[in-house]
Amino acid sequence: MGTRERGHVGTFVSGRVGIVGLGLMGGSFARALHQGGREVYASNRTRATLELAMIDTVDAELTNDTIGTCELVILAGYPQMTIDWIVGHQDLVAPNAIVIDTVGVKRTICSACFRIARGHAWHFVGCHPMAGTQYSGYAHSRANMFKGAPMVMVPPEDLDDLARLDLLDRVERLLEPCGFGRFTVTSAERHDEVIAFTSQLAHVVSNAYVKSPSARDHKGFSAGSYRDLTRVARLNAPMWRELMLDDADNLSTEIGMLIDNLAAYRQALDTHDGERLEELLSEGDRIKRKIEGR
Amino acid sequence: MGTRERGHVGTFVSGRVGIVGLGLMGGSFARALHQGGREVYASNRTRATLELAMIDTVDAELTNDTIGTCELVILAGYPQMTIDWIVGHQDLVAPNAIVIDTVGVKRTICSACFRIARGHAWHFVGCHPMAGTQYSGYAHSRANMFKGAPMVMVPPEDLDDLARLDLLDRVERLLEPCGFGRFTVTSAERHDEVIAFTSQLAHVVSNAYVKSPSARDHKGFSAGSYRDLTRVARLNAPMWRELMLDDADNLSTEIGMLIDNLAAYRQALDTHDGERLEELLSEGDRIKRKIEGR
Repeated sequence: MGTRERGHVGTFVSGRVGIVGLGLMGGSFARALHQGGREVYASNRTRATLELAMIDTVDAELTNDTIGTCELVILAGYPQMTIDWIVGHQDLVAPNAIVIDTVGVKRTICSACFRIARGHAWHFVGCHPMAGTQYSGYAHSRANMFKGAPMVMVPPEDLDDLARLDLLDRVERLLEPCGFGRFTVTSAERHDEVIAFTSQLAHVVSNAYVKSPSARDHKGFSAGSYRDLTRVARLNAPMWRELMLDDADNLSTEIGMLIDNLAAYRQALDTHDGERLEELLSEGDRIKRKIEGR
Repeated sequence: MGTRERGHVGTFVSGRVGIVGLGLMGGSFARALHQGGREVYASNRTRATLELAMIDTVDAELTNDTIGTCELVILAGYPQMTIDWIVGHQDLVAPNAIVIDTVGVKRTICSACFRIARGHAWHFVGCHPMAGTQYSGYAHSRANMFKGAPMVMVPPEDLDDLARLDLLDRVERLLEPCGFGRFTVTSAERHDEVIAFTSQLAHVVSNAYVKSPSARDHKGFSAGSYRDLTRVARLNAPMWRELMLDDADNLSTEIGMLIDNLAAYRQALDTHDGERLEELLSEGDRIKRKIEGR
């Protein structure tokens, strides 16, 4: 393992993966890694779900006694639960093991987890798989959830370049059975800025969209555009509350910009200014074509 | 043909369909009806497209000499073009033939076309197929475009109930090869109210969404929710300008309500009011579940 020895990240090869939380994300990691031949240990708040998963996907329960045998620990819970787990189990993770999370915000998670990891010989890498559905829970998890999807990774800043590359390389190899389409490395700040736009704003808009009184009765009057706009109106409110509060500054800015942009169309409609309306529509069309062309 | 004789709608059975405009909609009607064994005549502003369609889909050119041989005429152009065509060709349509349009607004179209039709022995039915894509033009048209999609129909108000049923029945039978999933009968006013919400608002929101500076660089940071929210940002601006101006009152109201709803989430974020934020998110989730459950 030549390249790895040159960095400061030591190796620990058990191949075993521990997963904390068997929801949509954790369940999908468990299925993908199990199908890829990896040994999967897991824990879950609701025991019935763990027992269900142990029938065909999870090899054994992840306990305080087995955490130290895992080369990779995936924390697949809500933001605060993720931080709480690391606080409570920091002494049980094996030296040179890697802990990752799957949370949709990275500043709060990474600042807390990097700080804790600095006091230990294991490593934390902030992760956010760009995949999911509007449904929650283990029942909706599937082995191909991450197939072709981007994975965003935030490495610790206190490693030199070579050690950071080694660490990210290990994460990529450990997650190989998931089939991610690409790995994007970024900072927690940049992640939270972009994700406020690509994910959080989409959920807010979709969720707000269905609040029009017109939403109550449109059977026979809707096509793909309505279906797409409102797909993620359905969401896990307690989880998104945490995620959105942790990215409140960026999300508020994005909502504000969207409101201003929407107001411009409304103004053009109210004044029956066809030229201005077409200009606004053409501008959006042009931007979208440009993005798609990239 | 017993039932038809009881109404005031006479019959004229040539089975031939005339299509004015071979864009996304007109082209899809031409393909579906041709595959269903109907004789299709068509006209198009750009002659090259007509010639292309005549290779395998369109039987002959729709001219002033052949309009009178068509049992059904489908006007598949922009709003103003649709009205202009009827004004210019009203004397050429055969008695008892049916003229329909495919325009996304119905008040302006129906009031103009019903008025003209009243002076003739042919019938006009306002139609709006709830199908389409973000791409325009004959090249993107396809025979299965309407498969399972709803078709909204606005019948003239000056017919008695039986005659109206006969007329709508004839339209349904003439369009049978298109495979519409359901036919919804409504008024022009109701159509324009609902469509402002299900279709026009979706296009405005999608088009406005991509105007955030964050849209410029989010490669590797986006998943299905962003893709769905921005799919119809790409649109035919001159056509949507006409459609939106014709439904400006309803669309402006919908945009206003959405802005107010979005402002509530922003307020909760700015005051870090987690309880209120979760309440807002749960409300949208609840409404969406209720709609899906119907």
